[in-house]
Amino acid sequence: MTRSKEMAESLPIQWPSGLSKNQRYLIGVSGGLDSMALLHLLSEHGYSQGIVCHLNHGLRGRAAAEDARLVKKIASQLGYEVAIKKIDLREEISENKTSLESAARKARHQFFAECSRQHDCKTLFLAHHLDEQAETILWNLIRGSAGLRGMKASSTLTMDQVIMRIYRPLLGVRKKELREWMKSRKLGWREDASNTVNDVARNRIRNQVLPLLDEIAKRDVAPLIYDSAHFDETMREAVDETLQKTQVLDPQGRLHLGALKTLPNAFISQVIFDYLKSKNIKNLNHRLIEQCRSSLDPRAPAKVGLPGGSYFIRRAGRAFVE
Amino acid sequence: MTRSKEMAESLPIQWPSGLSKNQRYLIGVSGGLDSMALLHLLSEHGYSQGIVCHLNHGLRGRAAAEDARLVKKIASQLGYEVAIKKIDLREEISENKTSLESAARKARHQFFAECSRQHDCKTLFLAHHLDEQAETILWNLIRGSAGLRGMKASSTLTMDQVIMRIYRPLLGVRKKELREWMKSRKLGWREDASNTVNDVARNRIRNQVLPLLDEIAKRDVAPLIYDSAHFDETMREAVDETLQKTQVLDPQGRLHLGALKTLPNAFISQVIFDYLKSKNIKNLNHRLIEQCRSSLDPRAPAKVGLPGGSYFIRRAGRAFVE
Repeated sequence: MTRSKEMAESLPIQWPSGLSKNQRYLIGVSGGLDSMALLHLLSEHGYSQGIVCHLNHGLRGRAAAEDARLVKKIASQLGYEVAIKKIDLREEISENKTSLESAARKARHQFFAECSRQHDCKTLFLAHHLDEQAETILWNLIRGSAGLRGMKASSTLTMDQVIMRIYRPLLGVRKKELREWMKSRKLGWREDASNTVNDVARNRIRNQVLPLLDEIAKRDVAPLIYDSAHFDETMREAVDETLQKTQVLDPQGRLHLGALKTLPNAFISQVIFDYLKSKNIKNLNHRLIEQCRSSLDPRAPAKVGLPGGSYFIRRAGRAFVE
Repeated sequence: MTRSKEMAESLPIQWPSGLSKNQRYLIGVSGGLDSMALLHLLSEHGYSQGIVCHLNHGLRGRAAAEDARLVKKIASQLGYEVAIKKIDLREEISENKTSLESAARKARHQFFAECSRQHDCKTLFLAHHLDEQAETILWNLIRGSAGLRGMKASSTLTMDQVIMRIYRPLLGVRKKELREWMKSRKLGWREDASNTVNDVARNRIRNQVLPLLDEIAKRDVAPLIYDSAHFDETMREAVDETLQKTQVLDPQGRLHLGALKTLPNAFISQVIFDYLKSKNIKNLNHRLIEQCRSSLDPRAPAKVGLPGGSYFIRRAGRAFVE
């Protein structure tokens, strides 16, 4: 067994289970390290029907032509189809007054939807890895998430009426592991191609926050953050599974207090949180949720004021927002 | 209603429920802002039987005498008993080769246990607030916690065979809220008294990480981190409550696969995590837990290698570490 073969096997890739390797797959490839590694790994792992989707945002000038050339060359070597498109993102931004980052994200999603339609293929592989996952988790945390939340190894993307399933098999792999693997196989990539659009906040998390945390903790914190978020996600899934079994809403979509009462208190808080969120109540916090939960007791006041001027009301065995 | 009275009522203090205000309580008071605020708030709220516990670590020289003087004066004004002790922490450290921070923590806990015994009082109020909670949560996260974990509003402390219940009613209050409240009432405190021992890592989280995160997120992140961790704690409690209802261990303390099978997958992972932790298996991570969970399937290999050389084994309807 060669060293590079050994390494590929030791990379902690999470291949989607229950998917045929012989169906068609879209693969998002910028030409940068991460997506080029994904491309080679998919091919090596036997996914033979890839459609490589490469978007030129019109931001990297002549370097972009080189990006596309490399992507085309390798895709053809691996026997994959190629879909390439060029847009002028700057023009779009000046027209729509949006930030470069969100415009770039939207443009990519639209491009994937276009490819999905053209090639009649609803499954897309993306190259997000563990370091990006740790950044995402911290970014969500400081914007106010409920628990630790990152990208999912499998998720749905809806754009322009197209519903796609996204897989991120590299989510548990470090960027440096990908780099070592590519080097050990003498495979090439385009520096900076994957960072066409630098999100300021995310860049600062990557370049300032994570190194600072490493230094303070005297260890490599990204995998610890990743594991911690995975623990959270597992727990949320368990809670969701339990709640789905309990019919907490009545046919009118109001909370059914009889059903709620069968649940542990903490689950009731969770149900109230989800319910208020579904009613677009903003600025939810723990205190408010606990106030609402207390109001379910028949001896408590039956009305709690909510942000935005509406009320959480208990009446005749139900609770609802009005 | 006076302005200060209004403010005290608007401070989001979490008073322990179901406790008589006329029983005796230990109160940990350094003389710093947080604990002096706690002292006044307890008195104002009608807790009349306080025993103020003040430890002089022997680190602040003459300033420490002033700390003790203020604590004694205010305690007596409020009609509280006072327990004061002086130790020489530096001497202790040079004898026991431990870090200043952990030596100081241990010394405080021993002092509280001593007070508890002397005054036959098993309940202790501490002044930890929201900013310290946010620091603790981040510090635990980068040391590798399962989810977001901070201090609890109510917890147990065991030291020198004494079991005490600790309450932290200020855990949801900002330090700046305490400062404003104290100022509005023209109440005094000793600067730096609560920071007798500065933990380097925690100080860096307070002075470097949190301000950096505020700047990147363009908002005050501590309350968001606090709420997010509270969400996690609520969820963990719900999971624990559910698991306690399911008898997952057999009389020999092994995992009972028949009982496990009734649970959602995510709960099974949780049970395995707790079980391996109870067996002192170190370096638990998501991949390992999932390997163990997969091994419960009769068609899978019945043995998974664990860090430290032991094995997770499935045999005859049970799973255990050997």
